[in-house]
Amino acid sequence: MSDSKKVFLVIGAGAGIGGHAAKRFAEGGYHAVLARRSDAEGLERLVGEIRDSGGEASGKLLDASLPDSIEDLVDDIERGIGPIESVLYNLGAQIGNRPLTDTPLRTFELGWRLGCFGLFRLAQCLLPRMAERGSGSLLVTSATAAVRGNAGQHSHAAAMGGRRMLCQTLNAEYAPKGVHVAHIVVDGSVDAPDTLGKLLGDRFEAYKQAKGEEGVIDPGVLADTYWHLAHQPRNCWTHEIDVRPFTDTPWWNDNPPAAIDTKSR
Amino acid sequence: MSDSKKVFLVIGAGAGIGGHAAKRFAEGGYHAVLARRSDAEGLERLVGEIRDSGGEASGKLLDASLPDSIEDLVDDIERGIGPIESVLYNLGAQIGNRPLTDTPLRTFELGWRLGCFGLFRLAQCLLPRMAERGSGSLLVTSATAAVRGNAGQHSHAAAMGGRRMLCQTLNAEYAPKGVHVAHIVVDGSVDAPDTLGKLLGDRFEAYKQAKGEEGVIDPGVLADTYWHLAHQPRNCWTHEIDVRPFTDTPWWNDNPPAAIDTKSR
Amino acid sequence: MSDSKKVFLVIGAGAGIGGHAAKRFAEGGYHAVLARRSDAEGLERLVGEIRDSGGEASGKLLDASLPDSIEDLVDDIERGIGPIESVLYNLGAQIGNRPLTDTPLRTFELGWRLGCFGLFRLAQCLLPRMAERGSGSLLVTSATAAVRGNAGQHSHAAAMGGRRMLCQTLNAEYAPKGVHVAHIVVDGSVDAPDTLGKLLGDRFEAYKQAKGEEGVIDPGVLADTYWHLAHQPRNCWTHEIDVRPFTDTPWWNDNPPAAIDTKSR
Amino acid sequence: MSDSKKVFLVIGAGAGIGGHAAKRFAEGGYHAVLARRSDAEGLERLVGEIRDSGGEASGKLLDASLPDSIEDLVDDIERGIGPIESVLYNLGAQIGNRPLTDTPLRTFELGWRLGCFGLFRLAQCLLPRMAERGSGSLLVTSATAAVRGNAGQHSHAAAMGGRRMLCQTLNAEYAPKGVHVAHIVVDGSVDAPDTLGKLLGDRFEAYKQAKGEEGVIDPGVLADTYWHLAHQPRNCWTHEIDVRPFTDTPWWNDNPPAAIDTKSR
Repeated sequence: MSDSKKVFLVIGAGAGIGGHAAKRFAEGGYHAVLARRSDAEGLERLVGEIRDSGGEASGKLLDASLPDSIEDLVDDIERGIGPIESVLYNLGAQIGNRPLTDTPLRTFELGWRLGCFGLFRLAQCLLPRMAERGSGSLLVTSATAAVRGNAGQHSHAAAMGGRRMLCQTLNAEYAPKGVHVAHIVVDGSVDAPDTLGKLLGDRFEAYKQAKGEEGVIDPGVLADTYWHLAHQPRNCWTHEIDVRPFTDTPWWNDNPPAAIDTKSR
Repeated sequence: MSDSKKVFLVIGAGAGIGGHAAKRFAEGGYHAVLARRSDAEGLERLVGEIRDSGGEASGKLLDASLPDSIEDLVDDIERGIGPIESVLYNLGAQIGNRPLTDTPLRTFELGWRLGCFGLFRLAQCLLPRMAERGSGSLLVTSATAAVRGNAGQHSHAAAMGGRRMLCQTLNAEYAPKGVHVAHIVVDGSVDAPDTLGKLLGDRFEAYKQAKGEEGVIDPGVLADTYWHLAHQPRNCWTHEIDVRPFTDTPWWNDNPPAAIDTKSR
Repeated sequence: MSDSKKVFLVIGAGAGIGGHAAKRFAEGGYHAVLARRSDAEGLERLVGEIRDSGGEASGKLLDASLPDSIEDLVDDIERGIGPIESVLYNLGAQIGNRPLTDTPLRTFELGWRLGCFGLFRLAQCLLPRMAERGSGSLLVTSATAAVRGNAGQHSHAAAMGGRRMLCQTLNAEYAPKGVHVAHIVVDGSVDAPDTLGKLLGDRFEAYKQAKGEEGVIDPGVLADTYWHLAHQPRNCWTHEIDVRPFTDTPWWNDNPPAAIDTKSR
Repeated sequence: MSDSKKVFLVIGAGAGIGGHAAKRFAEGGYHAVLARRSDAEGLERLVGEIRDSGGEASGKLLDASLPDSIEDLVDDIERGIGPIESVLYNLGAQIGNRPLTDTPLRTFELGWRLGCFGLFRLAQCLLPRMAERGSGSLLVTSATAAVRGNAGQHSHAAAMGGRRMLCQTLNAEYAPKGVHVAHIVVDGSVDAPDTLGKLLGDRFEAYKQAKGEEGVIDPGVLADTYWHLAHQPRNCWTHEIDVRPFTDTPWWNDNPPAAIDTKSR
């Protein structure tokens, strides 16, 4: 327990964005709480690395799709460790491209439970506390699918589109109360062993090779941007920001462009 | 039963947009099927009006939040009446402005069930049939909240934001198969007794008076735009369109603008 | 001269969108005035076709980049033919894809003069007249480049981006005065011999073949959408709409999508 | 002259954003070059302050609307001081709200010359140099008017809308070459004596008082965000970001929201 430290909570703390954000905030003096669904061993390793570097951290296994799981976690932390000054909602809902008929109803629903409803639940139990303290930040990792729906992304895009609008309603109500809500559109692939790595499996290393040097987002680098956002003074808050590797075509551009852009008449 | 007629299905057929769209498509030669959750009497009246004008129509009470309700309806129509050539998903999820802490989890979830999940279910059971026939259109009534989240709109905006992204994923997969998906951003209030009328109650007439002549969307007029969209030849399809009364400030503008726009430096 | 007829003016009246819009409005009872920069013969042919079909039309050669050219045209029409009820600004500024260093300053400036400044000049001399009459519509043909800047589109995108924002400021000031401003995002190639045809030259027919049946926008079909927009009652006005062939990927989607959408994670 | 230092150039270096960015980059080890149109005395003061703090800085009076002015400045710096590693285009074009008929053609054109064309000229003479060096960043201060056109903002919005699309085309061509282009949407008023201060005159202090504590963007704080963006490693670049004070309603929200959001039905 650390009375003197501010708490940084990550929901979705794998070895990619979540874990690196936890490290970054721990380096900056926060007590980092890492919550994830499974892999107690991997979680312990992340917590251990932070502690070995002289930081404070705790780990917690958590199935965010279960009722009260997020709510109880927030309660426990605020009572047992200290006030959560900053929280990162980092749960993804990407399941790869699936045609409409290969997207079961329960898959679509689970996408929403993790991608949108969990954020609502987190906000509902934590933002009023932050507002009462007049300070706090909610960082939300988001995706290309939050701003455009691509073929095969039915579940993911519907969840992320809801997530983005929810961030705007939360900001509209809570920014004036001193709570900073930031929606980060991660528009490129991340060097994240626990998500993209598992999605690609054996092909992950070849994929990164093909992307070239600095062609995949380094989650440690992204963590610096998260840190920056969480510490903007409140006269100058960012609500939305995008990031991608320099070699990646942004979501709004074709790759490659037509020789003659007959489209843009 | 009408073998020779194309079917137009409206899910959410009140006395506003849904009912007028049904009338418009019946006038144009469709067999209109009107589905709504409650008020059998009101439903019968709408169906009766269409029939009295020489059109074909059927009515169906339907709780779209129940499992299989939409799926069974589509099945029944396609078997009993004929192929659905055009469908309007017109269910709203507006509950008025509610602070975060006054938005129960079940309310947020119901908003999603009606605003987003129901559309997914409809698409999943109907679009493959349309694709097989190489023809069909899915019109989706949408709202300001689909493009921006305003204070108090947590449930509505999250549902509508998901709805909009879902329309894009459906379009990406089904447009090349000949199915037209159109997302209509209704960015103004509609003269709809069954939704806005009930929300405002006694104040509805005063509200319309205050908006002035032609200050509220006439659902019969909007129905003409729906008809136009559903009948665009496939070399020139619209995916997204907005509508509002001429006196209404679009969602992206302030009302009124600052005397000096210090914001837009 | 036709006192009894409303006037429809097209600035940029080639054989594609502009010419077909003129035909459509002439069929609907307007006196169509077709203005274009060059090719008197082609212009006469368009005017002749309308007259042969029983419509009213006039032609005018006009270099819209010259001072007072648009202003004088509007003056002449309003004095000599009648009040302009509807106007279509249809000048493009597409020059194909050019790297930054191959885009001369004068090219960039000309793009703006035709793509943005000409619309401002038209609006300034015509919208106050429409506002005084309490009625009128300004249709603006726009392009993909108005909503996203793609590689090589420096001149075009800068002009079209300005055009789109200008349409919003014009709408904000003039919609409440009864003038309908509509911005049409043409997000696909058009079967337009005078623009795309000239850009592609000999390859135009092969290009259309490759796009397949109904794979290119038929400007006559688009003209019907223009007509619809110009005649929406003012309780239900559209400010922005997109169109594309059913086989075209919308500007916000990749074509083709990645096998695994590693981007949208 | 400073061979060992990277150069940071600000075009539009008043006492607000531009001046503070120059200070921040000078603190970080850059030689800051401050260019502005007028007020040699004010410019000298800014340069002096940086030097007094141990930083390197130069000042230059420059009318960016004149041909070759920007081009010559870039040439001079690259030859006389060193390679420009980072540049901030900070020229505004806000002239306050003016009805269409009170916006002279030359005003509209000047807005474009400063707001859009100057950026194109800067990019054309500098980005190829950066690309050849494989490194560099172009920061572009932008405004609410780049994303929505409000009443009275004809000149400003058309210029800024073009600016935003231009940033996207520049990014599309130059990001893969190692040049980072970032478009910063400043969606709130800035404590900038030379721009907003002059626009408001005597009312500036009262305006800031009314906005409350931290209710106006501190340009020194914003400069930290500029620094962060310019130093993101290239595997994780931001192209667009917004900022505003916590008390300011974002551009997409109404202020205040309607008691019942009849709009977002």
